[in-house]
Formats: sequence, C-alpha cells, structure tokens
Amino acid sequence: MVNQNNRTMRLGLLGLGTVGAGVAQILLDPKGRHPLLTEISLHRVGVRSLHKPRSLHLPPGVLTTDLEALVHDPDIHLVVEVLGGVEPARTLILRAIAQGKHVVTANKAVVARYGAEIFQAAQAQGVYVLMEGAVGGGIPIIHPLKQALGANRLNRVLGIVNGTTNFILTQMAQGRGDFATALATAQSLGYAEADPSADVDGADAADKIAILATLAFGVQVSREAVYCEGIGGIQPVDLSYAERLGFRVKLLALAQRQGEYLDIRVHPTLISQDHPLASVQGVQNAIVLGGEPLGEVMLQGPGAGAGPTASAVVGDVVNVAATLRADSGYHPLLGAPATRPIPQLPMDEVQTCFYTRVLTQDQPGVIGQLGTCFGRHGVSLASIVQIGIHEQLAEIVVVTHQVREGNFWLALAEIRQFPAVADIPTVLRVWS
Amino acid sequence: MVNQNNRTMRLGLLGLGTVGAGVAQILLDPKGRHPLLTEISLHRVGVRSLHKPRSLHLPPGVLTTDLEALVHDPDIHLVVEVLGGVEPARTLILRAIAQGKHVVTANKAVVARYGAEIFQAAQAQGVYVLMEGAVGGGIPIIHPLKQALGANRLNRVLGIVNGTTNFILTQMAQGRGDFATALATAQSLGYAEADPSADVDGADAADKIAILATLAFGVQVSREAVYCEGIGGIQPVDLSYAERLGFRVKLLALAQRQGEYLDIRVHPTLISQDHPLASVQGVQNAIVLGGEPLGEVMLQGPGAGAGPTASAVVGDVVNVAATLRADSGYHPLLGAPATRPIPQLPMDEVQTCFYTRVLTQDQPGVIGQLGTCFGRHGVSLASIVQIGIHEQLAEIVVVTHQVREGNFWLALAEIRQFPAVADIPTVLRVWS
Repeated sequence: MVNQNNRTMRLGLLGLGTVGAGVAQILLDPKGRHPLLTEISLHRVGVRSLHKPRSLHLPPGVLTTDLEALVHDPDIHLVVEVLGGVEPARTLILRAIAQGKHVVTANKAVVARYGAEIFQAAQAQGVYVLMEGAVGGGIPIIHPLKQALGANRLNRVLGIVNGTTNFILTQMAQGRGDFATALATAQSLGYAEADPSADVDGADAADKIAILATLAFGVQVSREAVYCEGIGGIQPVDLSYAERLGFRVKLLALAQRQGEYLDIRVHPTLISQDHPLASVQGVQNAIVLGGEPLGEVMLQGPGAGAGPTASAVVGDVVNVAATLRADSGYHPLLGAPATRPIPQLPMDEVQTCFYTRVLTQDQPGVIGQLGTCFGRHGVSLASIVQIGIHEQLAEIVVVTHQVREGNFWLALAEIRQFPAVADIPTVLRVWS
Repeated sequence: MVNQNNRTMRLGLLGLGTVGAGVAQILLDPKGRHPLLTEISLHRVGVRSLHKPRSLHLPPGVLTTDLEALVHDPDIHLVVEVLGGVEPARTLILRAIAQGKHVVTANKAVVARYGAEIFQAAQAQGVYVLMEGAVGGGIPIIHPLKQALGANRLNRVLGIVNGTTNFILTQMAQGRGDFATALATAQSLGYAEADPSADVDGADAADKIAILATLAFGVQVSREAVYCEGIGGIQPVDLSYAERLGFRVKLLALAQRQGEYLDIRVHPTLISQDHPLASVQGVQNAIVLGGEPLGEVMLQGPGAGAGPTASAVVGDVVNVAATLRADSGYHPLLGAPATRPIPQLPMDEVQTCFYTRVLTQDQPGVIGQLGTCFGRHGVSLASIVQIGIHEQLAEIVVVTHQVREGNFWLALAEIRQFPAVADIPTVLRVWS
C-alpha cells in the first residue's frame, strides 16, 4: 500500500470532534514523538460541516464533507475512524477495508457489535484494523493483550472501564451527595453527557468488556448476551456500609472462563479495599488481567478524553506504519531504540521537595531559626511542625516545597551547627 | 533465519534456574497459549551441571554444559539468556548476535551497562534483542514504551521497580519491626537473597530505571552516573510520621527531562497517600509513565518470580516469531484475532458472593430465619449483622460466600415474603 519511492503514509481521518482534533494535533506536530510520525501525512479530514469554527490549523484543502469519497480515495493508505456511534462508522470502515486500506478506530460500539465481520473482511483483504483507543483511553491494553502476554493462558479480565460511573461512585463514597447530585456534578464537569444512559446503565462498559474478552480468550462474544446492570439504584448508605465492611463499590466489567462457558457481565460490585481496583478514583480506568503463569497485572490511567484517546489511536497508526516498513526488512519497533547522548543532572541541581526530622533542645525560637536559615538559602517550606518530644529533645519535622537540592544541603549543613540542634536523623525526598 | 520449509523456530536457552525453568515449562506446554508457540521448539538448554536433579522433563539430548557451542549452533535461530549476572552473559549474548541469532534476555545488569553495545551489534547484524523480562517481571512495560505510546512526548518515568525493598517498607509501615527485622522476614520468605545488598542499596532499581529512561527518552544513560540511595537508614518512626503527614515512603526510581538534562535517580521518597504508587504493597512493582498528550498511566503487577518473568520472556519470543512470519505477509500479532464460538454463562449459573441489605421488624429470631432460608437454598453466608435501626426497622446486612446466583435469588424471593421483612432495598455482588 505504501508508495515505496515516497516513504510517506497518507492518512484519512473520519471525524474532527474531541478525539479527532487530538489525533490531528499530534500528526501536525510530530517533533519529539516517534520518528515514524514524520513520515505520516494527514491527507484528508472528513467532517460534517466545513464552516464550523475550529482552533486547529489544517493545511488548505484537507477538510471535506464527502466521507464516502475519503474512504475510496486511492491516495489514502490508512483510514482513522473516530466518528463514534454505529452508523455511518461501520459502513465506512467496511468500505475502507474493501478498498484495501488499513483502519484504526476508537469505536467501541462498532467493534463490540461488528468486530467479527470487520476482522474477517480485513483478513480477506490483507489489511490491519487496530483499536487500542476503543478500551481504556490512553491505557495500553489491547496491545499487551495481543502481544506481550501471548505466553499466558489468560483466565480473567476485569476492571473499571467507564470513567463517568467511577467518578459518580467516588463522589458518593466521599459523601458528596446521592446518585442524582453526583451525576449532576459529573455533567457540570463534562464527565457525563446530557443523556448519560449509555454510561450509567453500563452499556459502554459492556461494549468494552466484550472487546477485551474476545481478545483475551479468542472467543466470539455476543454483545447482546452480556448481562448489564447500571449504578442508578445505588444509595449512599450502601456505600458507607460497604466501607465499614472493608469494601468499596465499583462498576465492574468482568469476563472469565467457567468450564466451557464464558462468564461475562457488568454490574456494581463490592470489592475489598485491599484490592488494587478499590483505590481507582474518579474518572480513572483500570483493568486487571489474570493468567498462568503471569498471575495478575493491573493497567491504570485516564480512560477517556482527547489526549489519552488520541495517544492510543496514533500509537496504532505508528504500529501500522512500522509493520509496513518491516516488510522491507528490519522491524523499527522491535529493533534497537534510537538513542542520543544526554548529560545527566548532577544531584545538586535536582529540583525536589524534602522531608527532614530534626532533634533540638526544647527551647523557644528554634523553629524560627530553622525557618530563617532555610529561607536564607532559598529553601521555601511547606510546613515546619514540632511533632513530639523524644528523650527530652523536641522533634521537629520540616517539609519543603520544590527546591534546588544543593541549596537544601547548604542550609542543612548550617543548621547542623546550631547549638540547639542535637541531631538530624532523617532526610527524605518527597515526590509531588 | 527461519527455515521456510519447516516453520519451526528453534530456540537455545541459556540458564535453567528459576526463570529458565519457567520459560522451558511454557514452551513444553503450549496448549491454550498463543498459537505461534506450537511452532517454537526448545532445541538446546545450556546449564552448569547435567546431573543436578530437576523436576522438569526435558527431551533427551537437550541439556548441554557447552554454552559456547550453543550460541554457535547453526540450527538455533533464537537464544534466550536467563543466566543473570554480567559475565558470561554479556559475552554469550554478543557471540549469539555475531552468529546472526535473535536474542531475548531478562538480564537487567547487562542491558543497563552494555545495552548500547548490544543494540548496535544487533542492528549491524539485522537481528532483534528483546528484554521485556528485564524490568517489572510480568508487567508489560518495555513493549508499551516501544510501541503503544509512540504518539507521545514522554516526559517522566517513575516507579517501584524492586519488590524486595517494597516488601520491607510495607512490613515496616505496618508496624512489623524495624529494617533488620523486616529484612529477615523477607529473607525467610524468599523475597530477599542471603546477600541483599543489590536490592536494599538500590542498585537493582538503578539498573531498571537506566533501561526505562533509555527507552522512554531515546537517550544514552550512564549507569554509573545514576544517583542511588538505599533504604537501610529508614527508621519506623519516619514511616509513621510520614503517614501522619499524608504520605507513604517508597523506594522510587525516577527519570525525567529537566531542560537539556536527564534527571535520573533512585532514593527512598515520601509520596502522597493519594498517589496510585502509594497503594502498591509488598513485592508488587508499579511503573508510572507520563507524557503529552497521554497524561499518566500506571502499570502494576508481580515484579519478579519464575512465572511472571517467564511470561515476559516468552512474550518476547512470540514477538520475534511473529515478526519473522510477517516478513512473508500478514503480521500475526497485528492481524485479526483468531476466535471461536463459546456459550455465554446464563446469569443464574454465575458463581458470585452477594451483599444484601434487608429491613425487618425489630424482633428476635429474624436473623435466624434469614440464615436458615439462605442455608436451605445452599447459600452459605460469610456474615449476617444487624448494622442499625432505620425508621424503627432493623437494618440487616448479609454477605454471602461464593454461591450459584440462581440459588441466591430463590432464597431472596422467599425472604421477601417473610411477614417480618419490610424491604430489601439493596442487592450487590461482591468480588472476591
């Protein structure tokens, strides 16, 4: 498909909404990203209206409203579909495949319902259909499932794959109102749509677990047969009882083998506070993959939004480009990383926060002396607290803001000489 | 390299310790794993002694003590190095490359120190050197860095990459003794070696962050110049003060761009309890990758051990096999997933734990009636507790063990008819 004289891969983008704009932005500004991105050009962008005001500066002539013509354009090697919804997305994907074009999509609704049809058509045409952006936003999940975990017998996939419902449940668990209040908050922050039903009823999560189960177990999943229960009936009182019992309530999507059956379902679920999924807060997503001999891994990150989803979509584009390039030799993604020399920052120049514990004589003015000395060296403090008395010495804990490491040590060397200071038993850096 | 008539890829394994045995076990038992594994044969296994008793049943003639001959064997296409330590591993890897063989290694010490030399040799020979097992055990981290995240400008990598020290810090934070006691516990459980210095002094973590920084930023890292501070000086009192201040103490390995410099270091660090890394307990590892436009993702899992590391190593073997196969056409890992039909489990047949809240008249014997009714339907209870009084009704919370869902609903339908039962406002499933 790729013109071998001119190494550029020409891309047609269907949709310029939140995710589409994010994809275009990356492609138009490839510096500092994977080198293959400099060889990919944004050839056409299919939109509903040419006249909508946009902040993005696209080259002239790129925008078109003729989506059909785009998927038939012989100059285009790869179609990125980020329209969302089932139609016309499904039809356009199938037409692009029929024209021998590779496809990258973030469309969970289409893949969950028509994945088998689409992959069959792609295989028949010898083209690739990738879909990292369809599940878990920016979390690399489809790739690890298809590639890095191939040694395993996978036996379970479960996770929090809908950020809207996790935000609502987190709000409720933190005592910020009932379901209706938390939903209204989510809507006001742009985390929930005006019609939130696909999220709160679990349909979006069911789309995603259907895709994950297909990949994890190599089975055909009937999306319609996925049991699906939403969070609309959850009451704050249940969240606080669950908390008291050592649990937290999450909308879990899960799929596991049960003998010859596939157990696949979406429902609100109590999960032990010790389980890593219990700590996943707000709009974050997280997915646990279990297998033999792996045990369990959890992949966590932003489950939606322009940046994260575009990261996944363009990652797929890079993969297709790399694989086509590999046909003529060395696979650029499996090959040696391109590296350049770089100076390593001396520790004195590091910017970090510090925690230090100082033992002093229990006398007035010591805290002031410490603070003044740090200040003289440009070390700004977040807190300085006498936290206790230890063998007749006052125990003072200092936490700094971000400072130049060298300045901190100069201040500390001076403080060590104060007559009132008996010992500085601990210095630790603080990550912020 | 691969014999095109016979599609089998022949593999030479260097080392049959914990990880090597795990690798061999997967290769000898490919059923239910990636289909490509059936086309990979374990041709030779290089060990120190032929006479050591082993639980593994290798085909006769596979074991050899002549490691040099193995890396020169013209029948071998790919060498897996899991000897550990710098020599003879480094020399054997370079010889295998010089013979035109692909290499998969889990050797962080060699890759951190001699990665540039090894990758240069590999590129010159047109062979691949993969190393997913060198960092984070079974967590897919090298793959996502090299492949799925290519769209991003990565700006930081940080994480808990040494399970031994995280176990020790977790023990200390939970009040189970000081450093020496926690180290002794780790040693008795096999989580720390007799000489624990490479772990507790941070050298192992420094090897790993050097590798991650090279991949994330495409820079040459001098392993010797990585600042490295261990956990030997941490006192329990600091862990409890940190806790009171809203932090937890972790041995963090981190690398980030700071202008034209690379800021790379390993040291014990206070991290906010709200940060996902703060919840990573015991021997688990977790790595956060930050980039634009991605934001941050965290990948968490078992950081060491035979199964997880073998999962990563064999995942790399599958990748090499797939890429060689792709040279003659369609890339099997990017292509359509192979799927087969599977029946989906009806909800009645699902095995799950339940939580339910029941409002009853506040009278004696009600709890007994509930318990008896559940028992009659084979629903075994984990707990049944009157948790409060709500509008003059007793509020009873029941948590079941794992039960057949259909049985639970039969019991609940009966309970709903009890004269004493006013309402059953909530039923939730419990993940265990």
